[in-house]
This record gives sequence, structure tokens and C-alpha cells, in this order.
Amino acid sequence: MLSPFMIAVAGGSGAGKTTFVNRLWQRLETLRPLVLRLDDYYRDLTHLPLAERARCNFDDPEAIERDLLHEHVSLLRRGLSVERPTYDFTTHTRSSLTETLASRPIIIVDGIFALCYPELNKLFDLKIFIDVDDDIRVVRRIGRDMAERGRSFASCCEQYEGTVKAMYERHIAPTKKTADFVIPWHFFNERALSYTAGIILSEIAAKSAINVNRSLKETEYPLSR
Amino acid sequence: MLSPFMIAVAGGSGAGKTTFVNRLWQRLETLRPLVLRLDDYYRDLTHLPLAERARCNFDDPEAIERDLLHEHVSLLRRGLSVERPTYDFTTHTRSSLTETLASRPIIIVDGIFALCYPELNKLFDLKIFIDVDDDIRVVRRIGRDMAERGRSFASCCEQYEGTVKAMYERHIAPTKKTADFVIPWHFFNERALSYTAGIILSEIAAKSAINVNRSLKETEYPLSR
Repeated sequence: MLSPFMIAVAGGSGAGKTTFVNRLWQRLETLRPLVLRLDDYYRDLTHLPLAERARCNFDDPEAIERDLLHEHVSLLRRGLSVERPTYDFTTHTRSSLTETLASRPIIIVDGIFALCYPELNKLFDLKIFIDVDDDIRVVRRIGRDMAERGRSFASCCEQYEGTVKAMYERHIAPTKKTADFVIPWHFFNERALSYTAGIILSEIAAKSAINVNRSLKETEYPLSR
Repeated sequence: MLSPFMIAVAGGSGAGKTTFVNRLWQRLETLRPLVLRLDDYYRDLTHLPLAERARCNFDDPEAIERDLLHEHVSLLRRGLSVERPTYDFTTHTRSSLTETLASRPIIIVDGIFALCYPELNKLFDLKIFIDVDDDIRVVRRIGRDMAERGRSFASCCEQYEGTVKAMYERHIAPTKKTADFVIPWHFFNERALSYTAGIILSEIAAKSAINVNRSLKETEYPLSR
């Protein structure tokens, strides 16, 4: 089997990573890319009392079970299946249920921490950072937290100023420099989306051609003896 | 003739645009891309006394003869030739000599102002911004100005603090948002270079295929009547 083409999509909270990934997926639909979301790899906090769990810093890369994530990305890259954990954001615990994910020719790893771990970065063929101004990101994030998590505007602002901003600047913004491409995403950059899909399809085609050549050589060899 | 594929390469002074363009050129060597440098389009300052010329602000996009640049890029895009001006940086005047540049299948427009002019931006098929931290750029710029233009460290610093930095922040940094891709160029991003060359070659191949199909249809049409 061919080694899958591995893409990382990083960027701050509210940058529009999910929109980017969804639109990229649509353009690659015939190959049905597998999307692995880092959010599913948050550490299980069962051992802590409920009140304490909510006070944990979920904007620190150490909140992710990094070893498990690395193991799963490595397995998928070798064409193998993984049992993806299921995380419950309301209780901050991992469900006993897992989902079996089979490897695919294209694998997209999506999350704010996607470029934070050096051992993971080595496994990516294409590293993308989605970039949007901080003011746009904060209002999008607060809007989402209020609508989807029923949180007050005041509590969102307090969390943003207290930890989210500092964590972004310390851990996430610096990963921009390690990306192959930074994609400005202020106006839904359709051309970047289209060129990115083109890169992936070309690389897949090139890998297949190499493989076809290899198969031909393997066939020729016994015949020529 | 096919419409050429037009690429803009922008970025601040000292970002490494020329290195990027040279390395991209090498990867596209068989198609011999044409490189148009914005520096050749600085306005002729013959009408000013020599002492006054040096005091002009060369970091303002208005220092470029924008209409002539737009006309030349438009002509090249239509497959026509242009008479490129020759600028003398020591006298800040334009030589009476021009160079005839014939259009090519790939045209690269290189300069700090490459994404500054909306009428020009419409002509580009791929807009790239080369990004490097400001501190790295300033030391590269000053080193170059001292070595190549025999300027003192003090005069370089004065100019940088006086105009260069402000002009970059006002006119050049904002064009990052209009780029299709921002390329982090701290560590010579070979992978971005290779993917960029791939995009260009794919687009050229796609254009040729469309053209072949069109020619076939044009051939078929009279036969079927």
C-alpha cells in the first residue's frame, strides 16, 4: 500500500480551520480524506473532581494526550487502523466508546496544536497554518462559546484575557514559522484552497506513478532472470 | 498563444525574495521564466537636483511608475514584448537604454511593492508573500546597504527608523492579507519552494490541455458541418 499523504492544519481558535478543512475535503471528495481532530485527544480528567476539571488549562499543548496522538498518526501513516477516543467536553472525560478509523490515502490532522509537537511534525507531508487577525478570532470564539456552550460574555472575556491569549502567543503563534504555507483566511481564500487541493492530488498521483513503476520493475525482474 | 502564468513575489526588504525567486527559477529552468523586477520601475528623478533625489522616499509605493509597470505587466500577460526601463540607483535616474523583454509562459514579478497596486493584483494567478521576522530583515538590509552601497551603519539605522519601518508597516505588511500564500522563509522553506513550482507546472499543464482540447474542437467543427 502507498504511504498516505499527511496534512496538518493548525491555527488559533476562531481562525476558521474547520471551514478550511471542510472545503478542502469537498475538493478531494472522490478520495474521501480521513480527518483526525486533535480535540478528541484531550486527556481524560476522570481522576479530578468535576469543579477542578473545568479550571484546567485546555489551551496548553500538554492538555492533549500527546503520546497517544503520535501513536495514532504513526499507525495511520503506515496504513493501519486506530481506535480513536471519544471526548466529552461537558464532563472533560473520555467515553469508553472508541471509533475505528481506517487509514486513507489522504489524512488531515486538524487542531490548534497540530504543529506544536516536533515528533508529530516529522510525519506531515504538508504543514498549513490558517491565519486570521486576533480581533476577528476573539469575537468568533466568544460568539461560538456563548451560542454552543451557553457561557456568559463576561466569563468568555475573563478566560480569553486570563489564559487563551497568552497560550496562543506562547504555544500556537510560534508554530506559524514551521508551516510550509501560512494561508491568510480573512476573505475565504478560495485560490489557496484550490492550489492546496492541487498540491495534494499531484503528490498522490506522483506517489502512484512511482508505485506503478516499482510494480512494473518487480514484474520485470523475475521475467528477465 | 496561451496566456502566461503570472506570479507576484512580495515581502519586506531583506525577507529573501530574490533568493526565493532564484531558487524557484532553477526549479522551472526548462521553461525559462521571465523575472520582472519592480526596482527597474522607480520614477526618473532627473528633474530634481542630485542632493534632493537622495532624500526622496523610495519605500513609498508612489516612488514606482505605477502606470508604466501596469502597462508592461498587461502587455506581457497578452504575450507581447516590452521595453523595460533601466534604473541607475547611484543617480536615481533612468538610463536612455531599455531592454527588450519577450513574454514567456511563466512571468515572475518581484519586489517589495508587488502586491501594493490593486489594478496589478488582478493580473496575477498566484500571489506570494515571503515572510521573515522584522529583526532578521533589518540586519540583512543594513548589512547589504553597508557592503553594496558603502553606507555607514549610523545612516542606515537613521533611515530605517525614520522611514523604512513606517513605510513597511503602512504599505507592505498589509499586503500579506491579500496573498494566496504567505511563505515563512526563516529556514529556507524548501518544501514551499517545491510545492510552489509544482503548482505552477500543474497550472501550465492544465492550460495546455485546455488549449489542445480547444484546438481539437476547432478542427472538428468544420469537418462536422
